[in-house]
Amino acid sequence: MRVTAQEVVTYLTEPAGDLESRIDRIIAGTPEAEVRGIGVAFIASHDVVLEAIRLGVNLLVTHEGAFYSHQEEQGFAPEDPVHAAKRKLIESDDMIIYRFHDHPHSYRPDIITAGLIEALGWEEEEHRDLGTASVVRLPQSRRLSDIAEHVKQKLNLPYLRAVGDPETVCGQIGVAVGYRGGGQHAIPLFEQERLDLMIIGEGPEWETLEYVRDAAAQGRAKALLMLGHAASEEPGMKLISERLAGRFPGLPVHFIPTGSMIEIL
Amino acid sequence: MRVTAQEVVTYLTEPAGDLESRIDRIIAGTPEAEVRGIGVAFIASHDVVLEAIRLGVNLLVTHEGAFYSHQEEQGFAPEDPVHAAKRKLIESDDMIIYRFHDHPHSYRPDIITAGLIEALGWEEEEHRDLGTASVVRLPQSRRLSDIAEHVKQKLNLPYLRAVGDPETVCGQIGVAVGYRGGGQHAIPLFEQERLDLMIIGEGPEWETLEYVRDAAAQGRAKALLMLGHAASEEPGMKLISERLAGRFPGLPVHFIPTGSMIEIL
Repeated sequence: MRVTAQEVVTYLTEPAGDLESRIDRIIAGTPEAEVRGIGVAFIASHDVVLEAIRLGVNLLVTHEGAFYSHQEEQGFAPEDPVHAAKRKLIESDDMIIYRFHDHPHSYRPDIITAGLIEALGWEEEEHRDLGTASVVRLPQSRRLSDIAEHVKQKLNLPYLRAVGDPETVCGQIGVAVGYRGGGQHAIPLFEQERLDLMIIGEGPEWETLEYVRDAAAQGRAKALLMLGHAASEEPGMKLISERLAGRFPGLPVHFIPTGSMIEIL
Repeated sequence: MRVTAQEVVTYLTEPAGDLESRIDRIIAGTPEAEVRGIGVAFIASHDVVLEAIRLGVNLLVTHEGAFYSHQEEQGFAPEDPVHAAKRKLIESDDMIIYRFHDHPHSYRPDIITAGLIEALGWEEEEHRDLGTASVVRLPQSRRLSDIAEHVKQKLNLPYLRAVGDPETVCGQIGVAVGYRGGGQHAIPLFEQERLDLMIIGEGPEWETLEYVRDAAAQGRAKALLMLGHAASEEPGMKLISERLAGRFPGLPVHFIPTGSMIEIL
């Protein structure tokens, strides 16, 4: 049975209701094109596009875009050879790329956050969806260093960035994916939700991080774990790929990992 | 001889000319107060304020502020106990805090960038000030891994965050301190300045980082080193402390290190 890119987009966007988004759109290719297979990834990196081509899929559904800018239309430097070579690669293979960012964050609960909580093995623990974050209550409080080991193992990460004493005992945990680690969003949650720990994607270094450092310097048991933007949102996209496979059983659906974005030297 | 906080501020702001800044101001204390000693730091963290008290100084000159927000007036959560305890500490000791951010970046050359280049031992190499960044030409190209070792040793850092192949050979290096690692600023510089490597403070993870990852995936020799916001701007504040010591020989002037902001677990 013939499936168009538009049918896949319609399936993906429906749970978010009548959301208007200027971010979520087909950034390469056309909605009428027939889909031969679907690749799902955190970001449309050069390597992800190459892997999609290798897998023979022609629709890429990615949370972040292809050209290094959130409002991406032209990116920051469309004449740049890196940008131009990537556009050429995408066009040469008639790859359709659908940017799927605001809609998944508007599912209730946010499916990107839900995917992370599931990947952490915490979906059976007491947790509450706040819209832009979730609060998880561990049945038993644990040391930050133990929680960090758990997170690394569950998400298969070589390291985590951390603020706070590794011995801090944490039970009430805020989870804020992507760029939601900024101070305006994250700092008030510590007090409002009586958090011991926040697990974030990323955020400016001297907002939430400095708040937590100061809290620790004042003898308060507070801590922060930074997964990185990709690691925090990738599990949600994996969940999306599983739903797509269930809805379109006639199509090959592949989740394509992004790989490590930042190495430690 | 009596020195007021205002006299120190006047000395610090003069080289920036007629700059109007709503960021740079006395955020605690009064300009008329007599200065007993000066502490200079990257940020007015709780530990830095405690150290200033211990050292007996009553004027803190810091690049970033005290309350976790760039436009800081109230911070994001002034009722928060961490915020409140810090304000109480500052007020209990009549500490004067002068936020010195826009002015040093408006020195020509930017003294925060110049401080980093000097700390890296590159002030004798060929380099050019672009205003918001500098370009350093190494006399001999070196592998990324060797440059990373050099940077860690010179700045006394336990690790660096990196993007790109450690074997990448780099000779033309862009240096962009603080939050100037974002895509809008940093991405066009790679092509305009024929950069092999950028050394940045911080920036959103999927702008410049993804550009460099894609460039590397396309076989271009490009790389990125992230020092962290504090490590990139602290040497500039150390240079400021040396100038203050020269200008006010009757006053104790102490540079106060911030310590590590982010641990790797």
